Amino acid sequence: MNYCSNCGNTVKLGTPPGDDRPRHLCATCGTIHYENPKVVVGCIPETNDKILLCRRAIEPRSGKWTLPAGYLENGETVAQGAQRETLEEAGARIEIIAPYALFNISYVSQIYVMFRARLLDGNIKAGSESSAVRFYSEKDIPWDKIAFTVIEATLRQYFKDKPTGLFPFHMGDILPKTRENAGEY
Amino acid sequence: MNYCSNCGNTVKLGTPPGDDRPRHLCATCGTIHYENPKVVVGCIPETNDKILLCRRAIEPRSGKWTLPAGYLENGETVAQGAQRETLEEAGARIEIIAPYALFNISYVSQIYVMFRARLLDGNIKAGSESSAVRFYSEKDIPWDKIAFTVIEATLRQYFKDKPTGLFPFHMGDILPKTRENAGEY
Repeated sequence: MNYCSNCGNTVKLGTPPGDDRPRHLCATCGTIHYENPKVVVGCIPETNDKILLCRRAIEPRSGKWTLPAGYLENGETVAQGAQRETLEEAGARIEIIAPYALFNISYVSQIYVMFRARLLDGNIKAGSESSAVRFYSEKDIPWDKIAFTVIEATLRQYFKDKPTGLFPFHMGDILPKTRENAGEY
Repeated sequence: MNYCSNCGNTVKLGTPPGDDRPRHLCATCGTIHYENPKVVVGCIPETNDKILLCRRAIEPRSGKWTLPAGYLENGETVAQGAQRETLEEAGARIEIIAPYALFNISYVSQIYVMFRARLLDGNIKAGSESSAVRFYSEKDIPWDKIAFTVIEATLRQYFKDKPTGLFPFHMGDILPKTRENAGEY
């Protein structure tokens, strides 16, 4: 951030009175520009004994498999966001079963909220960000081709809970694996 | 938003190619300025059979009672944010017991993530945003002086679960009560 989005003058980093961390401040109009973590919402779409995965058509991790998920938008609930992303990326209509997991990815200032969900019908169709959508049984999950650590963590937890029939809400932290991939997750 | 925070030129509202909603766009440097919901994190601090409430020293709802809660900051987990807010507003150190509730307040583009937490010692002290901090038994909760609907909803759910000894994770939506208070919650 270089300029004030309110008045167009230059901003500087500084800690406002009563605050404890630096913010972008506009000395001209007085606006304090706060930056906060973003929320990603998604789901595990179930049908019979399979789940739906999407193959990414875009970077990062184009060609790898993921669960439908994306940024929560202003004005929507986390459940609505997960439903929208599933429709956009997989052409699939879902009903939410329950919130399932929250993952912190604090090194990129994101939190993931993942739901269990049920497909409402058999319709699926790769959206513009997907190159394929496919149903997978547990034994066929392409573990070595999962796009993101947070998606792998969600799926591993899910298949650990599944035999028990109980899906309590989980919380976890995703840490950078190595210096090399610290910008990806 | 009037000006591009990257290059300082004026922005216009428009829907980017492949997107489905208007964003602030900079025609000069090409930056798309996304705006997303903010996350508020807080907790129900327990000690023996009481919980800790804070009386707000600032607007909105100055003088009303609330649970420690505030905006999640970049680089922290939701649990760390709840711990920081509890220390800032109530001078209290906590350990997180478990995530307890997620409330959508979509009409102001916020989500609340509330934890159950245990006070680590008896130390409490009103922070700069609080005019008092006090332990309350259920029978003494000042229900007519709770600052926000989302805090009342959290407390009501908590005291409903408490006799059962089970605290499953809850999700709920906070709706505007009337036209008059639609900007507050």
